[in-house]
Amino acid sequence: MATPLHARVSAELRERIHRGALPPGASLPSEARLCAEFGASRGTVRTALATLRQEGLIAGGQGRPPVVRDTALGQPFESLLSFTAWAERIGRTPGQRTVEVARRGAGAVAAAALGIGAGTLVVEVLRVRSLDGEPVMLERATFVEPVGRLLFDFDPDASSIYAHLARQGVDLHSARHTIDALTADPHDATLLDIAPGAPLLRERRRTSTAAGEPVEYGDDRYRPDKVTFTIDNAHPAASGIAHDLRVRKLAQ
Amino acid sequence: MATPLHARVSAELRERIHRGALPPGASLPSEARLCAEFGASRGTVRTALATLRQEGLIAGGQGRPPVVRDTALGQPFESLLSFTAWAERIGRTPGQRTVEVARRGAGAVAAAALGIGAGTLVVEVLRVRSLDGEPVMLERATFVEPVGRLLFDFDPDASSIYAHLARQGVDLHSARHTIDALTADPHDATLLDIAPGAPLLRERRRTSTAAGEPVEYGDDRYRPDKVTFTIDNAHPAASGIAHDLRVRKLAQ
Repeated sequence: MATPLHARVSAELRERIHRGALPPGASLPSEARLCAEFGASRGTVRTALATLRQEGLIAGGQGRPPVVRDTALGQPFESLLSFTAWAERIGRTPGQRTVEVARRGAGAVAAAALGIGAGTLVVEVLRVRSLDGEPVMLERATFVEPVGRLLFDFDPDASSIYAHLARQGVDLHSARHTIDALTADPHDATLLDIAPGAPLLRERRRTSTAAGEPVEYGDDRYRPDKVTFTIDNAHPAASGIAHDLRVRKLAQ
Repeated sequence: MATPLHARVSAELRERIHRGALPPGASLPSEARLCAEFGASRGTVRTALATLRQEGLIAGGQGRPPVVRDTALGQPFESLLSFTAWAERIGRTPGQRTVEVARRGAGAVAAAALGIGAGTLVVEVLRVRSLDGEPVMLERATFVEPVGRLLFDFDPDASSIYAHLARQGVDLHSARHTIDALTADPHDATLLDIAPGAPLLRERRRTSTAAGEPVEYGDDRYRPDKVTFTIDNAHPAASGIAHDLRVRKLAQ
């Protein structure tokens, strides 16, 4: 039951990042030094570094030693809220194609989540989100009207709705994400270019202000062969780290 | 866009629990005092308390004032690892029906996760897990042989495998959970008493020792109409709380 050497190298480097021995912004040792330190081949060291890069802990490479990302220890708040922020964090190119932006009466599910009466005016956005040009997620967002109206001055094909709202002073303070699964109906399947009945990983989200007022209800449906959620945690008594829980969205 | 009063009551009590104003073990104010404090009806206060109970933050009730659970702030490590610990924490009755316990050669996926060669002897357990008698999850666990052999002295229909292994001194230190979605094949569908092709929420898990040695690879498939995962987080700059990230498994 020997752990592969590349896993031991990545575990040791991850530990140094979490301990702060390798703080955000620091360069990792060169590949040659890591090979010498761990008695590992260059291929093994590169596999270990690829793992850390996929986890969003390090950036760079391509000839230069990789650097610890300043988001390596940060809360994943923006990157769980904003597809754009997440994609950029993991080094992929986010894209969006807007299917509709509509002002209409809220349906029952969104109304209940937002704490408003069904039929109250809201603004709904439906976009197909892509990574490096490939559709991976169907994003449905319902905004309370005073917030959603800010989107009519905005091109949702251009960039992040959340960054736009934050610039407009909208207080996006906390979010609850509920993760389940469903199968693609014919409409979703066409938009995502998959077969009807294919499994989808769904993240429903309620985003609230600091005062607890709901601002947005989201229903995001991911291709599970493209995007997964990971949760890392450790036994608290056995750990010297204050808080070991981390959540990440990973792209395949 | 007024927040319902019950949501404001539960948000305020949640905040007091997280701030430590209501520490673990403390009784909440009586329903009568909460009604007076918030200008709320008894039904509203009870709805707020039911939310906190569902979230695992409080226990008790039934005439006595509810009490803040000592797990309210704790790491959810055991409850994300052990179905039994989770079910008990949320006040449901866990059950299990063992389909097989087998010593066999590891398949490619489990072998890769465990860092062993395909075909290396492992112990595999397949159980149908239930809440209050209703099947909600299909649990497939692959243990490295030195750990899995401890299960041959154990009745997996009786209780928690993880509690048994912990009593035997097995070091279950940290876990990585990967969440995706798939559809039920005919075999899974029969075991869970659902239609083939129904969506399933899958949690794959690698559990390791403190030294980073993988001990177990799990593939748990949940009925998404019965169990979901929730992630709560908040913008770090706007929060006075050191770490706002929480992950919970919820039962419908």
